[in-house]
Amino acid sequence: MPVISIKMTKEDGGATQEQKDILVKGITELFSEVFNRSASNAVVLIEEIDMNNYFIGTKSVKEIRENNKK
Amino acid sequence: MPVISIKMTKEDGGATQEQKDILVKGITELFSEVFNRSASNAVVLIEEIDMNNYFIGTKSVKEIRENNKK
Amino acid sequence: MPVISIKMTKEDGGATQEQKDILVKGITELFSEVFNRSASNAVVLIEEIDMNNYFIGTKSVKEIRENNKK
Amino acid sequence: MPVISIKMTKEDGGATQEQKDILVKGITELFSEVFNRSASNAVVLIEEIDMNNYFIGTKSVKEIRENNKK
Amino acid sequence: MPVISIKMTKEDGGATQEQKDILVKGITELFSEVFNRSASNAVVLIEEIDMNNYFIGTKSVKEIRENNKK
Amino acid sequence: MPVISIKMTKEDGGATQEQKDILVKGITELFSEVFNRSASNAVVLIEEIDMNNYFIGTKSVKEIRENNKK
Repeated sequence: MPVISIKMTKEDGGATQEQKDILVKGITELFSEVFNRSASNAVVLIEEIDMNNYFIGTKSVKEIRENNKK
Repeated sequence: MPVISIKMTKEDGGATQEQKDILVKGITELFSEVFNRSASNAVVLIEEIDMNNYFIGTKSVKEIRENNKK
Repeated sequence: MPVISIKMTKEDGGATQEQKDILVKGITELFSEVFNRSASNAVVLIEEIDMNNYFIGTKSVKEIRENNKK
Repeated sequence: MPVISIKMTKEDGGATQEQKDILVKGITELFSEVFNRSASNAVVLIEEIDMNNYFIGTKSVKEIRENNKK
Repeated sequence: MPVISIKMTKEDGGATQEQKDILVKGITELFSEVFNRSASNAVVLIEEIDMNNYFIGTKSVKEIRENNKK
Repeated sequence: MPVISIKMTKEDGGATQEQKDILVKGITELFSEVFNRSASNAVVLIEEIDMNNYFIGTKSVKEIRENNKK
């Protein structure tokens, strides 16, 4: 407990294992501290989603990134 | 706001970007209209799932499609 | 097919059934049209989330709404 | 009804179709029996997640499996 | 491992604890058998959704149930 | 970006707003730091689930907590 699902865009070749490990360790330990619960059963799922499939305010993140470069 | 997740089977090579853009634009604008809320923070995630991993009434969509062709 | 999950904040007493029906009908028919697939198996789940439990950019929607009124 | 999502690690090349069929058939029929509801609209989604993206108690399943082999 | 989420409509006052226990035990043991993996870390989440918020083919389950009674 | 969903059991009356704010702020800032991305569009959803509906290794968290007290 808990189950934490992280849905993020896959960018620059995707997250490195080191980045994922740092993120998950930090999140799990923070949860454990804030709620004073053991982290041994904490589940974290990282789902990297294609930038073409992740939309914010009707625009895909791909389109948003391209517009930002103009 | 909101977060809308669309889980659909990947068929005929998968959805084109145009189809995704039309779908997301339509859904986001409809939500915005119905609830009179800004769409700027609306998140839509499209997850295309293999037909072998999507089951309806115990049958995979792959099996259903094949049965429909018989 | 597909499964569409809509996670939205519960505001002003929550969405009316009419609003939900309009939203779901519109989304399902749009999906059916765009992908030329039957809507008979389309599943849409509406999950209304407390404004205190929905955060954008570290702030809860409750806090965001209160700041907007200032 | 219902929508059942199964998120599992992809191991040993991934689940075979036979394994998935047995799992989905068993789960759907059990649900139908327990709640005395038709299974015709039951949706089951299998999402196989990379062992590097599935964490339990801050460790990825990959790391856990490797530690178990030592 | 795995994480299994069951989204079902809340009907007749909701599922009893006994029904949930039977369902979860059966699903977890079946998964463990089929994939020959320990069930000790298996997580199952049951989310009971209001019949007004669960739609199949544009109709809410509430409406479907009512039509079935006519 | 990203969408982070936290499914946790509702215990001791549920999480306080302060606990949620600390958790979300910490998670969002950590994500932003690790991936060097703006947090302005980060969405975090907290879903508090009844202890009777959250199962680990076939036992509900309620049952697990009760066994721990014996």
